[in-house]
Amino acid sequence: MTDLARKVSVGIIGLGRLGSRHAKHLVEKIQGVKLVAACALDENQLKWAQESLGVKNTYTDYKKMIDKEDLSAVFIVAPTPFHPEMTIYAMEAGLHVFCEKPLGLDLDEVKKMAEVIHSHPKQIFQSGFMRRYDESYQYAKKLVDDGKIGKIIYMRGYGIDPISGMESFKKFASAADSGGIFVDMNIHDVDLIRWFTNQEPIEAYGLTSNIAAPELAEIGEFETGVAQLKFDGGTIATLIGGRHAAHGNQVELEIMGSDGWLRVGEHPDMNRVTVFNESGVVKPSLQSFGERFDDAFTKEVQDFVQNIAEQKQPSVTVDDGIKALLIAKSCQESANTGKLVTIHYDI
Amino acid sequence: MTDLARKVSVGIIGLGRLGSRHAKHLVEKIQGVKLVAACALDENQLKWAQESLGVKNTYTDYKKMIDKEDLSAVFIVAPTPFHPEMTIYAMEAGLHVFCEKPLGLDLDEVKKMAEVIHSHPKQIFQSGFMRRYDESYQYAKKLVDDGKIGKIIYMRGYGIDPISGMESFKKFASAADSGGIFVDMNIHDVDLIRWFTNQEPIEAYGLTSNIAAPELAEIGEFETGVAQLKFDGGTIATLIGGRHAAHGNQVELEIMGSDGWLRVGEHPDMNRVTVFNESGVVKPSLQSFGERFDDAFTKEVQDFVQNIAEQKQPSVTVDDGIKALLIAKSCQESANTGKLVTIHYDI
Amino acid sequence: MTDLARKVSVGIIGLGRLGSRHAKHLVEKIQGVKLVAACALDENQLKWAQESLGVKNTYTDYKKMIDKEDLSAVFIVAPTPFHPEMTIYAMEAGLHVFCEKPLGLDLDEVKKMAEVIHSHPKQIFQSGFMRRYDESYQYAKKLVDDGKIGKIIYMRGYGIDPISGMESFKKFASAADSGGIFVDMNIHDVDLIRWFTNQEPIEAYGLTSNIAAPELAEIGEFETGVAQLKFDGGTIATLIGGRHAAHGNQVELEIMGSDGWLRVGEHPDMNRVTVFNESGVVKPSLQSFGERFDDAFTKEVQDFVQNIAEQKQPSVTVDDGIKALLIAKSCQESANTGKLVTIHYDI
Amino acid sequence: MTDLARKVSVGIIGLGRLGSRHAKHLVEKIQGVKLVAACALDENQLKWAQESLGVKNTYTDYKKMIDKEDLSAVFIVAPTPFHPEMTIYAMEAGLHVFCEKPLGLDLDEVKKMAEVIHSHPKQIFQSGFMRRYDESYQYAKKLVDDGKIGKIIYMRGYGIDPISGMESFKKFASAADSGGIFVDMNIHDVDLIRWFTNQEPIEAYGLTSNIAAPELAEIGEFETGVAQLKFDGGTIATLIGGRHAAHGNQVELEIMGSDGWLRVGEHPDMNRVTVFNESGVVKPSLQSFGERFDDAFTKEVQDFVQNIAEQKQPSVTVDDGIKALLIAKSCQESANTGKLVTIHYDI
Repeated sequence: MTDLARKVSVGIIGLGRLGSRHAKHLVEKIQGVKLVAACALDENQLKWAQESLGVKNTYTDYKKMIDKEDLSAVFIVAPTPFHPEMTIYAMEAGLHVFCEKPLGLDLDEVKKMAEVIHSHPKQIFQSGFMRRYDESYQYAKKLVDDGKIGKIIYMRGYGIDPISGMESFKKFASAADSGGIFVDMNIHDVDLIRWFTNQEPIEAYGLTSNIAAPELAEIGEFETGVAQLKFDGGTIATLIGGRHAAHGNQVELEIMGSDGWLRVGEHPDMNRVTVFNESGVVKPSLQSFGERFDDAFTKEVQDFVQNIAEQKQPSVTVDDGIKALLIAKSCQESANTGKLVTIHYDI
Repeated sequence: MTDLARKVSVGIIGLGRLGSRHAKHLVEKIQGVKLVAACALDENQLKWAQESLGVKNTYTDYKKMIDKEDLSAVFIVAPTPFHPEMTIYAMEAGLHVFCEKPLGLDLDEVKKMAEVIHSHPKQIFQSGFMRRYDESYQYAKKLVDDGKIGKIIYMRGYGIDPISGMESFKKFASAADSGGIFVDMNIHDVDLIRWFTNQEPIEAYGLTSNIAAPELAEIGEFETGVAQLKFDGGTIATLIGGRHAAHGNQVELEIMGSDGWLRVGEHPDMNRVTVFNESGVVKPSLQSFGERFDDAFTKEVQDFVQNIAEQKQPSVTVDDGIKALLIAKSCQESANTGKLVTIHYDI
Repeated sequence: MTDLARKVSVGIIGLGRLGSRHAKHLVEKIQGVKLVAACALDENQLKWAQESLGVKNTYTDYKKMIDKEDLSAVFIVAPTPFHPEMTIYAMEAGLHVFCEKPLGLDLDEVKKMAEVIHSHPKQIFQSGFMRRYDESYQYAKKLVDDGKIGKIIYMRGYGIDPISGMESFKKFASAADSGGIFVDMNIHDVDLIRWFTNQEPIEAYGLTSNIAAPELAEIGEFETGVAQLKFDGGTIATLIGGRHAAHGNQVELEIMGSDGWLRVGEHPDMNRVTVFNESGVVKPSLQSFGERFDDAFTKEVQDFVQNIAEQKQPSVTVDDGIKALLIAKSCQESANTGKLVTIHYDI
Repeated sequence: MTDLARKVSVGIIGLGRLGSRHAKHLVEKIQGVKLVAACALDENQLKWAQESLGVKNTYTDYKKMIDKEDLSAVFIVAPTPFHPEMTIYAMEAGLHVFCEKPLGLDLDEVKKMAEVIHSHPKQIFQSGFMRRYDESYQYAKKLVDDGKIGKIIYMRGYGIDPISGMESFKKFASAADSGGIFVDMNIHDVDLIRWFTNQEPIEAYGLTSNIAAPELAEIGEFETGVAQLKFDGGTIATLIGGRHAAHGNQVELEIMGSDGWLRVGEHPDMNRVTVFNESGVVKPSLQSFGERFDDAFTKEVQDFVQNIAEQKQPSVTVDDGIKALLIAKSCQESANTGKLVTIHYDI
C-alpha cells in the first residue's frame, strides 16, 4: 500500500444491488477514497446513501452530479444500455471512470465509447471484470501460468443463477434489455477464458431453451443458453448461462490442461459447514454472486484507486470488454439463426 | 433369482482386457452358466483361460468354435470391426449373442447385422451398454423418472481416459480402427443421454484437437473431441472424449434438470479413503474403467443369462446400438468437415 | 484362484440380516463351496433358504444339523451369546468354523471356546472381522505399512448406526444381551486399531449417554458411547459408538500419522451420484452396513474357503477376537464405574 | 453501522504475526478507529508500523505508551504471560482493552486481572475469542440454536498446526511458556464447545505424546494432546491439539446432535479451486490460521469498536476466558498426572 496523501473524490451512478455494494465498500473498506456524491432514480436509495453511508450530495441526474461536484472519479453502476453515454460524458469531463460490465449492449455505441476512452489516455478507465481479482481464479491463473497443468485443451464456464432470483430477473428483463442469456450470464466466463488461454474464439455454435421457464418467451428471453466455441489456438470451450439452478449460484470454471485440470467453484459452498442430516451429507450453497465475490469487488476497487494514484491503466482494457461483448453476442446470434457464426474482430 | 436347472453353455471370442474380465466373471460370479470354450489369437491368453479358469477347449478360429462346440450362447469381445460378421455367423448358427459395444464401425455392416438379428427373434441379442446396469446411473435414472429434478435441460458426458492408458491406445489404434474419438470414448454417453432424455439428437457440432498429444495425428487420431448436440425435445448436450486425464479415468455425467441437477462420477474416487498429505486433501482416482464398472459388467451378464432363461429380449436393443453409433459418427463428421451436421435416422 | 476339485459342504446356523447375506453369497458368489443345510428358529427363513437358495435340508436344532449332515464347515451367525457353545460343538465334531463377531459376550466362555479351538489346530477357525477384507481399509493399511503417513499418533473409530435402525435395535436388545454399546458398535474399530498400530491399549476412559434416546435406559442400553484409549506404544485412540445418526451409517476411521493422515469412510456415500437441489449439494448416504460391506463379506468367505483348501489358519486369530472383546468391555466398565480402567491381558 | 462521529484512538502492544494483522486491519479495514501508537521490542516491527501503516509514535515500553499517548483503547497482542499485568495497567489507566487469548497462563494472575476488570465496569474488556465471529461457526450456531440438529450428544474440536509451523514453534516455546498443548492449541475449541452446549465440563482425561516430534521433550512440550471431557449436561467432547499436520492447518469442529451433525472446517480448503492431477483429486489446504480467520479477526475488532461506541460489554466475558483456561489446564494436568481430573470452578 503506497501512501495516498490526498483522497480521491468519487461519485457513484446507480445504487441497486451492485451499486449499493460498491458504495458500501467505498465508504467502509477502501482506503484513499471519499464517496462524496451519489446519483440514483430511487429516492429511498439516495436516502440510504445519505443516512447509512454519510454521502453528502445526491442527484437524480448524473450529468448534474458530474458538472457540480468536484469529482476525480465516477463509478457507473447504472443499467447497461446507459454505460456508453455515461462513460463518454464522464471521460469528457476529465474524470477517471470505473464502469460495470458489460460495457454496453450495442456494439456501435461501445466502439464509440472506446474511441473516447482511447482519446483520454491519462484518465483511468476500468471495467468491472472483478473475477480476475478473486483469489480462487488468481490461484488457478498462477497454476496455469506456472505450467502446472500444461497446455489448455478445453474450458467450461457456467454462469447459472439460482431459481430464487427468477422473479427479480423477470421484472428487470421486462423493463430493460438484458442483452440476452450469453451477454447477461457468461460475459465474465468469456473474459476469463480469454485471460487463461490468451486465445480468441473464431467460431460459435449457440443453442438456447426455455424448458425450465417457458414464460420467459413472452419477454423475449431464454432461461438457458449453451455455446461451444472454437479458439484460434485450438482450444475448445463451452459456455452455459442459466437462470434456474435449484441449489444456488453456480459459477464454475473448468480448465482442462494436457497435464492436469482445475475446477474453480465446482460447488457453490456457502461456508465451511458440512451438514449431516436426513438428506445425506449436505453442503449448503450460496445464492448470491454478491456474497460469492464480495472480496473480489473490494479488491477491484482498491486496484482502481491504486491505478489512479499511480497513473497506470489497468491490465483489463476497454478492448477486452468489447471483445467479450462481441463473443457473447456471437453466441446469441448463432442461437437466433441456427447457424454457425464466424467471429470477426473488426474493432 | 429363478431356478436355472440347466446351465447355459457359453463360448467367448476375445480374451483381451475386457474379454478376460467377462471370462473371469462367467466362471467366478455368474450363476447358471458354464464357460466351455474360448477363442483368441494370443496363445498366452488361451493358456490363461485353460489354467486359471478351467476352460476346456480353446480356439484361434471363432467359426470352428461355434461349429464344433455345443454352445447356447457366445460372447463377442473381439475388435469392433469384427462384431458384425461374428454376430451374423453366431445368430445364423442359432446362438444367443452378447456383443460388446459399439456394434461395429461401418454403418452398412451394422445395418446388415441388425437385419440378421431381427430375423432371429427367438435368440437373445444383447449389446454391452453396461452403464445402464451401474447402480449410480440406475439411482440417477430413478430420481429423474420420479420427477425429482424436473425436466432435463442439459446433459454433459465426459469419457476421458487417463494418461496412463495412452501408450496402449497408440498400439491399439496403430493396428486397428478405433472409430474415432467420439465413437471410441463417448458411445456410452450417447446411450445414457438417449436413455435419460428419451429424445434423439438432431444436430451436431464437433471439434477435435491434439494439443495434448500431437503425435496422434500420425495415426489419424485425435486426443480430444468436444461436441454439442441439439435434441428434438429441446434438450442440449455436450460430449467430451479424451485420452489424457492426469488424474485418472473421468467418466462423468451431468444431468441438469429444471428442479435440480445430478452429477454421476464427478470425481473418479478409487475407494473410500481420503488422504491428507503435503499436497492437501486428496482423493485417489481410479485409473481403469474395468475397476469402475466391475459390478455393472457382472450385472449385465447376469441379466443376459436371465434373459436367455426367460426368453426375453433386453431393454437395450440393436437399434439403440445403431443410433448411438450414428450419433457418435455424426459428431466426428462435423469435426472432420467443420460444418454443422444434421442427424438423419434412416435406419 | 487355485483349483478346488471337491466342493466344501457347508451348513449355516442363523438366517437373520447377516446370516441370510452370508447364505446368499455362499450360493451365488463363492466358488468351491456348496450350502447343503441351514438352521434357524424362524420357519419363514428356512423356507426362504429352500426356495430361493435351493438349500436341501433345514433344521431348527443346530446339533442335529451338525450330527446328521456330512458337513466340512459351519457358519455360525446366531446371536452372540450362543457363539461359544456352537463353536465348541462344531469344532469337536471335526468341522471348520466360521464364527461371526464378537466371539461371545462372557469372557470366561470365550476363553474356554479358545481352548477348544487351539486344541484342534488342523481345523480352520475364522471370525468375522470382515473389515480387514474391505478394499478401502486394505488400501489404507498398505499406505500405512509402506510408511506413507509415518508413525501413527492417533486413531478415531466411529461405529454409528442410522436412526432408521433404532426400532429394530430396541426389539433386538429387549430380547437379548447386546453386549453394550462398545461391544456392539465398536468391536470392529478395536480390531482395526490393533491391526493398524500393532499396539495394545492399556487404559480406557469410557463415557455413555442417552441424550438422543432416553427410552434406551429402560432396557439397560446406551445410545452413545465414547472412549479414549491409551496404547502401549504411545498412540491414543477415540472410539465412538452410537445408534442415532440422522444421515446414515457412519463407519469412519481416522489414522493420524506423523507425516500424513487417512480417513476411511469420512462420509457414507451411497454411490457416485451428487445431487444439487434446494438443500444445497448433497451426497446421499448409505443406511446399511450390509450394503457398505457387501464386497468385504464376500471376500472374507472366499478367504475362509481358500484357507480350508490350503489348510491354512487365517491371519485374524481367536486371540484377536478375545482381545477385541476384552478392550470393548473395558470401555464399558469404565463408563459403568466412572473410573479409569487398566486393561490386563491375562488370556 | 451507527455514526461514529469521533474516531477511537488506539494503541497496540505487540506487532508479531497476530499483532501485525490486527494493526493492519485497524488501519485499513476498521471504520471509526485511528491507530496512533504501537509498542514492540523489535525495531523492525516498529519501523514497519511507521512506514507501512503510518503509525506516528512507537514505543518499546508499553507503560510509556499508555502514559504519554491520549488513547481510548489498547490492543494487547504481547506474549501470553504479560496479558494480566498489561491489562491491569491499561484498565487502571482508564482504557478500553482488547486482549488476545488466552488471558494468561497463571490462574492466580488471571483471577486478579478479572477483579480489576470487574471493578471498571464502564471500560470495555474484550478477549480474542474471534472464532465466535467467523461466519461458519455463526452459521452452525444458528442451526443449533434453531434446533435443526436436536440436542448435542458429542463434540470434537481439532486445533492442529501444520508441520510448516514447527520450527517457529520450537523457537517460540524455547523462549517462552506456551502454556502446554491444550492451552496453546485448544483454548478456542473449549470456548466454542461451551458456547454451543451451554454446559461446563466436570471431568477431564488427557493424554499427550511426542511420537511425531520427540525433540519437543527437550523443551518440555508435547506435539499432540488428546482429551476427553464429561459435561454437566451429559454431553461428551474430545479435544485434539497438535503441531504436525502434513496437509495444513486443521481447525475442525464436529457437533453431533440427536437429529443431525455439523462439521465446521472438515477440510482446510485454501480456496474454491479443485486440482485434478497425478495424485488424484486434490483440494489445496490453508497453512495459516491468520488466512483462515482473517474475516473473523476483522469482525471481532469491528465489534470491539462498536461496543466502545455503544458502551456495551461484549457477550464473551473475562469469566469465559478464565473458564476456558481452567479447562485446558485441567486436560494438561490429567495428562501430566495420569489421572482423571475433576474440574472445580471456584472462580
